Amino acid sequence: MTQLFGIDAAEVRALAGAVSDEDAADVFARAAWSCIAEPGDRVAGALVAALGAADALSALLAGEPAASIAPRVDVEERMVADLTQALERWMPRLLLPDVRRALTQAARFRVRLITPDSESWPTGVNDLGAHTPLALWVRGELPALAHLDRSIALVGARAATGYGEHVAMEASAGLVDRGYAIVSGAAYGIDGMAHRAALASKGVTVAVLAGGVDRFYPSGHDALLTRIVESGAVVSEVPCGIPPTKWRFLQRNRLIAAMSQATIVLEAGWRSGSLNTAGHAVSLGRPLGAVPGPVTSAASAGCHRLIRNYGAACVTNADEMAELVPTDVPMFRDEVPSPHHSEQSRLLDTISDRAPRAAADLAKRSGLSLAGVHALLGRLELEGAVVERDRGWMLAPPPKKEKPLA
Amino acid sequence: MTQLFGIDAAEVRALAGAVSDEDAADVFARAAWSCIAEPGDRVAGALVAALGAADALSALLAGEPAASIAPRVDVEERMVADLTQALERWMPRLLLPDVRRALTQAARFRVRLITPDSESWPTGVNDLGAHTPLALWVRGELPALAHLDRSIALVGARAATGYGEHVAMEASAGLVDRGYAIVSGAAYGIDGMAHRAALASKGVTVAVLAGGVDRFYPSGHDALLTRIVESGAVVSEVPCGIPPTKWRFLQRNRLIAAMSQATIVLEAGWRSGSLNTAGHAVSLGRPLGAVPGPVTSAASAGCHRLIRNYGAACVTNADEMAELVPTDVPMFRDEVPSPHHSEQSRLLDTISDRAPRAAADLAKRSGLSLAGVHALLGRLELEGAVVERDRGWMLAPPPKKEKPLA
Repeated sequence: MTQLFGIDAAEVRALAGAVSDEDAADVFARAAWSCIAEPGDRVAGALVAALGAADALSALLAGEPAASIAPRVDVEERMVADLTQALERWMPRLLLPDVRRALTQAARFRVRLITPDSESWPTGVNDLGAHTPLALWVRGELPALAHLDRSIALVGARAATGYGEHVAMEASAGLVDRGYAIVSGAAYGIDGMAHRAALASKGVTVAVLAGGVDRFYPSGHDALLTRIVESGAVVSEVPCGIPPTKWRFLQRNRLIAAMSQATIVLEAGWRSGSLNTAGHAVSLGRPLGAVPGPVTSAASAGCHRLIRNYGAACVTNADEMAELVPTDVPMFRDEVPSPHHSEQSRLLDTISDRAPRAAADLAKRSGLSLAGVHALLGRLELEGAVVERDRGWMLAPPPKKEKPLA
Repeated sequence: MTQLFGIDAAEVRALAGAVSDEDAADVFARAAWSCIAEPGDRVAGALVAALGAADALSALLAGEPAASIAPRVDVEERMVADLTQALERWMPRLLLPDVRRALTQAARFRVRLITPDSESWPTGVNDLGAHTPLALWVRGELPALAHLDRSIALVGARAATGYGEHVAMEASAGLVDRGYAIVSGAAYGIDGMAHRAALASKGVTVAVLAGGVDRFYPSGHDALLTRIVESGAVVSEVPCGIPPTKWRFLQRNRLIAAMSQATIVLEAGWRSGSLNTAGHAVSLGRPLGAVPGPVTSAASAGCHRLIRNYGAACVTNADEMAELVPTDVPMFRDEVPSPHHSEQSRLLDTISDRAPRAAADLAKRSGLSLAGVHALLGRLELEGAVVERDRGWMLAPPPKKEKPLA
């Protein structure tokens, strides 16, 4: 009896075949990886990129030590340490029953698993590099994903105002009229209104969830997500049965930014989660827009912050939003090299990881204008590279690791 | 009997002495010039700069022909033609009774005439170069003008909304609290609210009028302007008895921008006159801010336009407005040369004065990015250098001359 990953190859083919037409070993392995690694796991990304999903899984199942796997992934010595840590967090999750359950559950809900080889793979997410998802679980119409190559993400506060919901509705309907698919996160408030208006305009809309697509979140949007499944798609990086966590919401945001060609924030408080999506768009070099609102409304404060400090375009209607998407007009962008990169390096050289420094001090040390320093700090803060403390700016501490799932 | 300008020197001294302590011949001559030349008359500016106000006036009174005056002003041959035209529009106004009446009326209303030699001359207006006013007529407290070196212009739509007036009030009071004088144009709506809130906060406020300060305009703001005179100042470039015209409103706007260190537009329709003030601020290199508002409000459309296309900072409170004013912090601005100048030349080289060209075409011809072309076009449009036609962009026609006063 032929075996794959230590189980009957026929079972692997049956399980994989129920969710995908692609190579069964790869599909099964990617399903397993999406059970094992948290979204955005850089080490898993590097390992799968170097060995392929199936061989990488086999190495894990064979109990290969980090020191033997690492050289096949990257010559950097740090990879051994990274892999050692990664194996520690992956091993408790390397459970065949979980993979089997994820695939069975997916088949039951008519969920498809797509891989970078799939025709419907949203190629935009490949720009995430080592953070590219290893697989995507899709509920709904796979052909809807083809519309992502002409799509705009509309995101915003859960606690939206009537103004915000009105603007979201107009924006979504207007962009659908102009041929754009609408990407959002299915949350209450702005997200929900964006999806709803797209559906009402007979447009294509794609919802990206932080948890498995077998169980819609938030539950109050069960009917809305059911309707999205009928003509669009509901997508997640995590398998069926996996609940959303704070980490997964943040990683979900990177998918929203990466899947669409531009991100628009419609309403956002000063510390809204939508600013995280905006940050991902900026990191990816995707156009970012924000809709202004009354300065007396706390729900617009985050939008004004994006326009003021993070270079977001001020967009007031669907036309201006659509203009953000790069067109086929020759751009000659390369002929005018951006001065930002070298200035950014000069600035980063002056920021300490121990002593906070005021912007004026950094301007003096870097020889950049104060206005330039503010603009660069804004961008670096959005990218998570620096943080502002009471007495000034510091390099950001390394990102907190998500604890292994209990 | 000594004569000055063909009249009794004692009368000149008496008339001038009633409105100024500076040199009587210069004061009288500048009073005469402000009767003769429309605000912003470039040729008058060049003539007075080259010969002095008194000698320039004497040349006119002596009936010197353009060909004999021109070489003393500028070696450029064009100056003969410019002066010939200018003499034609000045001569009908070279009437001593008008000057005498302007000065007598000024003295009656306790109006002071200040010149670039006066201690209270707002030095910011000197940045206007050949368009610097030849004299300013001031009603109110001359020492108030000293506060202009720490001042912000708050301007906006006459047809302001409740939102706009609320924001204008908060902004004006907040800036007064931070030690800024408030400059505005005394119009209904935003301007009036800005002055009013400054007075209520015991701040210094300066109103710049398009007509003579003997007759307050608009008449509905008579009481407000009377209160401004008590602690601040009401200023005009034109003498008593001269009514406002469209041209004078536009030239008045340049004074508002030049007198203050930053200009903030609080509410403005798509084609509001406040955008003209904003354009002057940009031309002068002064910081420009605009307050966002609901995208559903036509009264905020001009503000969003400024933020979107003209590089205005998005400002939402008095702190952010105050931040626009350059401080004493070393800026090192010269170390990072702006790429705009050379890009602007490259773009202007591709814009025709006869055939309109689309932005994408201009991008192709200039080798600049489309986004860069849009940004530069916006700035050039605001400066009046280019205009948008149905089929694209063209160089702006030469400015229309104001007809001589009937």
